[in-house]
Amino acid sequence: MGVPRPLFEELETPALVIDLGIMERNLQRMAALARQAGVGLRPHAKTHKSPWIAHQQLRAGAIGITVAKLGEAEVMVEAGITDILLAYPIVGEQKLRRLERLLDDADVILSVDSAEAAEAMAQAVRRSGRRRARVFIDVDTGLRRMGLAPGMPTVELAERIARVPGLEVVGLMSHAGHVSAARTPEELAETARRAAQALVETAEILRRRGVRIEHVSPGSTPAARFEAQVPGVTEIRPGTYVFNDRNTVDRWACTEDDCALTVLATVVSRPAPDRAIIDAGSKVFSSDPSVRGDGTFGLVLDRPGVRLQRLSEEHGILVLDPAEAGADLQVGERLHIVPNHVCPAVNLSDVLYGYRDGRVVREIPVVARGKYK
Amino acid sequence: MGVPRPLFEELETPALVIDLGIMERNLQRMAALARQAGVGLRPHAKTHKSPWIAHQQLRAGAIGITVAKLGEAEVMVEAGITDILLAYPIVGEQKLRRLERLLDDADVILSVDSAEAAEAMAQAVRRSGRRRARVFIDVDTGLRRMGLAPGMPTVELAERIARVPGLEVVGLMSHAGHVSAARTPEELAETARRAAQALVETAEILRRRGVRIEHVSPGSTPAARFEAQVPGVTEIRPGTYVFNDRNTVDRWACTEDDCALTVLATVVSRPAPDRAIIDAGSKVFSSDPSVRGDGTFGLVLDRPGVRLQRLSEEHGILVLDPAEAGADLQVGERLHIVPNHVCPAVNLSDVLYGYRDGRVVREIPVVARGKYK
Repeated sequence: MGVPRPLFEELETPALVIDLGIMERNLQRMAALARQAGVGLRPHAKTHKSPWIAHQQLRAGAIGITVAKLGEAEVMVEAGITDILLAYPIVGEQKLRRLERLLDDADVILSVDSAEAAEAMAQAVRRSGRRRARVFIDVDTGLRRMGLAPGMPTVELAERIARVPGLEVVGLMSHAGHVSAARTPEELAETARRAAQALVETAEILRRRGVRIEHVSPGSTPAARFEAQVPGVTEIRPGTYVFNDRNTVDRWACTEDDCALTVLATVVSRPAPDRAIIDAGSKVFSSDPSVRGDGTFGLVLDRPGVRLQRLSEEHGILVLDPAEAGADLQVGERLHIVPNHVCPAVNLSDVLYGYRDGRVVREIPVVARGKYK
Repeated sequence: MGVPRPLFEELETPALVIDLGIMERNLQRMAALARQAGVGLRPHAKTHKSPWIAHQQLRAGAIGITVAKLGEAEVMVEAGITDILLAYPIVGEQKLRRLERLLDDADVILSVDSAEAAEAMAQAVRRSGRRRARVFIDVDTGLRRMGLAPGMPTVELAERIARVPGLEVVGLMSHAGHVSAARTPEELAETARRAAQALVETAEILRRRGVRIEHVSPGSTPAARFEAQVPGVTEIRPGTYVFNDRNTVDRWACTEDDCALTVLATVVSRPAPDRAIIDAGSKVFSSDPSVRGDGTFGLVLDRPGVRLQRLSEEHGILVLDPAEAGADLQVGERLHIVPNHVCPAVNLSDVLYGYRDGRVVREIPVVARGKYK
């Protein structure tokens, strides 16, 4: 454990605070990891939803960014970022018109996992000033979410989409979210390598059959250091690494001292000797579970006897172990808590407070908050 | 099941849509329930976070509203609503200054469960133009969140707070959220009645000892109809009833046809015969679990063979039962889904779309969204 974090009496709680020094170290480390492996880094901006932080990532060596939804892409293009992977199929007439306008402004790389969506997207592409767009095919390397299986199902889909006028199939992408189910670091590493390998092999089949796959792009923070080492991978797309969170710690990808974002909360009630209530609940942390499976909602820093056991919308219910030092919390006391999953926590806030040397030096607006369309 | 809900091709998805007819019926029914029981109705505005809907509730017969945080109270006062219970202790210097200004504008009823918080709040009250404020004591009738136990622990706290200059203890409040753990309707009814009874008995002890408790206020949608019938209860504070949700249906408090709010979502991928992906994930629904304990995230209307089995931030993963009619979803198809818990879903959106007779007639801004301070 590092030094206790500052309590910022000048800030109202709950507040999401960012240790900018830790954040910058996280950006540098992932950039170095990618550079040393000879792959590109295209961070997923969904973790921070902030153009200012996206620009920091690019300055630290990222080749571009990833976003999930059109609304996020629009925010980032507006902020002058143009090398963007839009990692989501665009479905529906209103969205296709927005895609058309987006392509007028930036040569966004698209992503798709079905011929139906690809054909509709191609019409928007051809109507745009650009008339063509690069496309990644989304592949299911084990998460069982989007994408067809690696190998022939994906090969046949990619070949079919490559024939659609306006779409240029240039890459394969995947998200190895399923590595989080691993019970040991070895199992996680092996699962991550196998998933990336399946993507590389599918790209090789496609190249042999004449589809020019230039980009092989797996993406996941806990899997990143393993994916980057798989020969044939050309870029990685971690998101969470910018802040890290408790689930990242528990997936052996960082330590508690690498968690840049914490929720600063205040004790508002001490109704029982073994219970304290803080002013941050699921409206601050989200209800996302811990990968530990212990039902808790965050890592309370500097207080080993304190567990964030339950959340309601505006209340965090702390269970105190009186045998541990520091468990005797007072009303008004402040705590730093690392959320289980930082991305949805950021999405619940309008602003993040960046600090350096114990002082808040920057308010970072979460410009792409709530852009789920 | 009622008639299929309209698909609103003019709306982009995901969208939170409100059947205004169902909402108005919900408001009328709860107002009638309170009126017939001879109790006041003070709905919790956290469910809708919208001044327009709060005004509808008042027009339908509510005596005032409840809010959780100062920021919500500020929004409602700004919208001309003045009879407000602020059901949360105010802790911290910045918040106490905001409380002082709020009291200048409205005779807000405060709530507290500790002498420490009460004494700090009293200072802000005495600094305000009003110089005194009414206070409800928050009592733990079984939820094990805020509040001391009913009976002597609460009595002694209330007497102590009643002696603090500036604070006038006028009521007892509780939230019977623990009734949701009931496994049968009978168990729920019995738990709700017992909790309200404990509040009433504590009020009687306090009155005998000279503390003028005018208000006895339990609050919870599934418990409301039982609480209202307990002699001595003077008001009820349900929140969810305005829209209802899947957990309310599963707690026997309404039917599927009483769910006014649904998430309108579009199928964006059909990667496997038993799987479809929609464009709404935890950034739309929240990750709040089902009280069924089956791990699903919402009730898909009009599609018996379709379950919302998993969520990631931007994806809802539907599991399809091919034996059921209507499970063969197409990319581009739209679905209505009732969220498990409607309150956090509303908090993730900037606007709700109200419809009537199949047409969207009103955009309802979620003005108090994200007001967790």
